[in-house]
Amino acid sequence: MNLANTIREVPDFPQKGILFYDITTLLKNPQALKESIDQLTEHYRDIKIDAIAGIESRGFIFGMPLAYNLGVGFLSVRKPNKLPAETISESYALEYGLNTLEIHVDAVEKGQKILVVDDLLATGGTAKATCKLIERLGGEVAGLAFAIELTFLKGREKLSQYEIFSLLQYDK
Amino acid sequence: MNLANTIREVPDFPQKGILFYDITTLLKNPQALKESIDQLTEHYRDIKIDAIAGIESRGFIFGMPLAYNLGVGFLSVRKPNKLPAETISESYALEYGLNTLEIHVDAVEKGQKILVVDDLLATGGTAKATCKLIERLGGEVAGLAFAIELTFLKGREKLSQYEIFSLLQYDK
Repeated sequence: MNLANTIREVPDFPQKGILFYDITTLLKNPQALKESIDQLTEHYRDIKIDAIAGIESRGFIFGMPLAYNLGVGFLSVRKPNKLPAETISESYALEYGLNTLEIHVDAVEKGQKILVVDDLLATGGTAKATCKLIERLGGEVAGLAFAIELTFLKGREKLSQYEIFSLLQYDK
Repeated sequence: MNLANTIREVPDFPQKGILFYDITTLLKNPQALKESIDQLTEHYRDIKIDAIAGIESRGFIFGMPLAYNLGVGFLSVRKPNKLPAETISESYALEYGLNTLEIHVDAVEKGQKILVVDDLLATGGTAKATCKLIERLGGEVAGLAFAIELTFLKGREKLSQYEIFSLLQYDK
């Protein structure tokens, strides 16, 4: 099946001039949901991965079924003050202002290979901050997986040292 | 395996006097992650369900692998201004102030049987608002599933018309 046909394009969200690629219509479709998770699973089945890092909150959506299928653990990378135990944090620049992400200090064991999962690769700032958090804890980034990649925002350039896989690519 | 042994108890989170049951230590453990999803799948395998509604954001964690295993669609119930297309909303009282949840108006088809999934059943306010959203769209709540139920907060009483399943129960 063609997953792209299940994505809804919403103009002017979250702000004027932005075309938003909406995954809720993909997830609502049982065949598309299954196909998206199966494609991710197939891509990573023979790659050594110890755990999946899902980025809040749509990274949880694709990351958890993948962790289940691969038989590995799952850790969450979250906005500030959501994780209950000891954390470290990374901040990164947005167009206006800063964003901050946190990870539990015990989420990653030294030397573990961690696959980062999110719904969207745009400029790559969120993914890059997540990789830094994993590496500060002694983990190794095994790769990054996304449902949607906005190729015109060149997020891959910011993440050029990592293997990147995306289910759908948009060039505008 | 005993899932309860994988839950971390964090005192005074998110505020003084609250004992927080942390699922990140369950999810980090590949066997516990698999066991939790398998128990949910087993419970619902023979019940007629058309889609899973996951409540932002930890409801996504348990809801998506369950949707995948049951071969149904997934819809998200989110905090305000996160869903890109047309929504309806429900507000409910917290100890201090109000919380609001939104759902896409096209997330539920009339007559569909929807299973609501979240990580935690506490007082039941969030779950109740979610059920109202589904019913306002013409859906039927097929049941509610939680990883953790705080039985002393009596959330079941607020949801007495629904079937409720939880993996772990705590009475204090």
